[in-house]
Amino acid sequence: MPLSAYAAAFPGFIQTLTALSAVIDKALAQAETRKIQPEVLLSSRLAPDMLPFTRQIQLACDFVKNAAARVSGGENPKFPDEEKTFEELKERIAKTLAFVRSVDQAALDSGVGKDVTFPRGQGQAVMKGEVYLTRFAVPNFYFHATTAYAILRENGFDIGKRDFLGDVFEA
Amino acid sequence: MPLSAYAAAFPGFIQTLTALSAVIDKALAQAETRKIQPEVLLSSRLAPDMLPFTRQIQLACDFVKNAAARVSGGENPKFPDEEKTFEELKERIAKTLAFVRSVDQAALDSGVGKDVTFPRGQGQAVMKGEVYLTRFAVPNFYFHATTAYAILRENGFDIGKRDFLGDVFEA
Repeated sequence: MPLSAYAAAFPGFIQTLTALSAVIDKALAQAETRKIQPEVLLSSRLAPDMLPFTRQIQLACDFVKNAAARVSGGENPKFPDEEKTFEELKERIAKTLAFVRSVDQAALDSGVGKDVTFPRGQGQAVMKGEVYLTRFAVPNFYFHATTAYAILRENGFDIGKRDFLGDVFEA
Repeated sequence: MPLSAYAAAFPGFIQTLTALSAVIDKALAQAETRKIQPEVLLSSRLAPDMLPFTRQIQLACDFVKNAAARVSGGENPKFPDEEKTFEELKERIAKTLAFVRSVDQAALDSGVGKDVTFPRGQGQAVMKGEVYLTRFAVPNFYFHATTAYAILRENGFDIGKRDFLGDVFEA
């Protein structure tokens, strides 16, 4: 039994984005107890030349949104990078989840066999849909999701890998 | 065009493990220049209650090896967690790559429709092969691969996300 293009990647994206939203809730509650201004965390980075928490969440969302839009060949809504609070980042995640849940799954299946063209640096990159989804979108998404989680862990927040994974055992 | 179970996850695993091996080479060269004993990095952690670099690599390898073995229903070789040097960690990655490249891809396709049973905590977990592969093995693998990378970044090593991604653009 082969997998649909949707099944190959999107249930994992949805599970992990949902888990990230719950991780933000946990971090907010702990920040209050620890008397940490939440905004301090939004600009926190693992290294001075890495992106801060806010950008990690925005990018995690965008790799999922762009994968859904570009591989299916459907409309690709632009989500402006304007979030200033954890609540707004949760809304970004919610918007992303709503979008990918509405993607045309048959169009995804057809799109993995076609070329995907997308902006990269000053130019454009072209990649087969299958490669774009499984070797570009998937690693990039988990990279940014894990880095967001790692920023909170490195700041002493009491979260664990089960929080990162989400509800796989309840599926 | 649906994807084979192999295509859904394993090319991404192979690309990222290959990239991690090259990241280790870069880190080794820079450690020499910076007069850092490589072994110091092997026990480095992002947070005191997170696992050190060595365990992150071992676990990244094991999620890939176990996914190949458990979903295909084939033999599951045990790789003992005895690595003490970067060279040995690179050998662990090489062993893992050789193993997953030999997996029976037709058995993987059939296995995603069956239950996978595996040890978890003191007991056993059961999960459909498709869920195990796409929502357990994939997120766990990229979690540990990214955390290994993040440990090096947080220690000031000069590596970037293209090093993490590997050769997707050369595919």
